[in-house]
Amino acid sequence: MQKIKIYFAGAISAGRELQPLYRAMVDFLQEHDAEVLSAHVARADVLTGESKLTDEQIFRRNLDFIARCDGMVAEVTTPSLGVGFEISEALQRRKPTICLCRKDVFLSRMLTGNRDQNLTILYYESPQEWQPALEDFLNKLRSAVSYRRS
Amino acid sequence: MQKIKIYFAGAISAGRELQPLYRAMVDFLQEHDAEVLSAHVARADVLTGESKLTDEQIFRRNLDFIARCDGMVAEVTTPSLGVGFEISEALQRRKPTICLCRKDVFLSRMLTGNRDQNLTILYYESPQEWQPALEDFLNKLRSAVSYRRS
Repeated sequence: MQKIKIYFAGAISAGRELQPLYRAMVDFLQEHDAEVLSAHVARADVLTGESKLTDEQIFRRNLDFIARCDGMVAEVTTPSLGVGFEISEALQRRKPTICLCRKDVFLSRMLTGNRDQNLTILYYESPQEWQPALEDFLNKLRSAVSYRRS
Repeated sequence: MQKIKIYFAGAISAGRELQPLYRAMVDFLQEHDAEVLSAHVARADVLTGESKLTDEQIFRRNLDFIARCDGMVAEVTTPSLGVGFEISEALQRRKPTICLCRKDVFLSRMLTGNRDQNLTILYYESPQEWQPALEDFLNKLRSAVSYRRS
C-alpha cells in the first residue's frame, strides 16, 4: 500500500524556537509509516538548506506539496504568516488538516472560529496528547484514501 | 462616488505591540476617503470589543468583509496565523493586496516567493515610505473599480 503523504507546517521565518518539537512530530509521523513531503521544516539547518532555492522556488514547491498531500499537520503554537497561508491553501483543496496547539497559547479566531469540516484543532500539553491524536489522524486518512481507491 | 472598501489585516492574538501603527495606517486610509471594513483591528480595546462575539461569528464576519472589500492592506511585521490565512483568502478572491513590512523583518517565503499579480510587498522604515505606497494603492483601486463600473 502507498504511504500516506503528509504536509507538515511549522514556523520558519517567524522563529525556530520549537524546531525540536517539529523534529519529534515529523519523526513520529515517519515512524507511523507516513511520508512527510515537507520534512525540511523539522531540520535544524532549514534556513541554510533552503538557501540554494529562490523564494519563488520555495513557494511553488510548498504549494505543489500541499496539492499532492493526503492531509496537513500544522504546529500552530508559534504565530506564522506562512503556516496561516498554508492552512488556508490546504482547506481550499479540501485536505484534512489538524492544527496542534500548546494549551497556554491564545490561538487566532481565523482558526478557532473556522467550522470547515476538514479542520481539527487539538490543544495539548505533552506528547501523550498529540501522539494519539496524530495516530488517529493518520488512521482516518488511511481509511479515507483506501475508500477513494477502492 | 462610493468609497473604496479596504480590509485591513494586522495581528490580534499573535501580539498587539504594533497597535499604534495599525491605528496610524487605518487613520491614514480613512483620511484618504477609504472605508475600512475591519477598522476594529486598529482599536486598542479590540480584544474586549470582540468578546461579545463568538469565535465563529468573528471568523464569518472577517470572511464576509474579505469577500466584500475592493482590496486588502496587511501589516505583516508581526507574524500572525490569522493574517497569513486572510491574505490567502483575499488572493483566492482576486483582491489586490498590499503587504507592508518593516525592513528589519525576515518575511515568510510564502509571501516573498508568491508571484500572484494581485500581491504587492512594500518594505518600509518610516511613514514617509508606507504613506505614499498606500495612496498609490488606493488610487489604483479607484481606477480599477471605476473601470469595472463604467
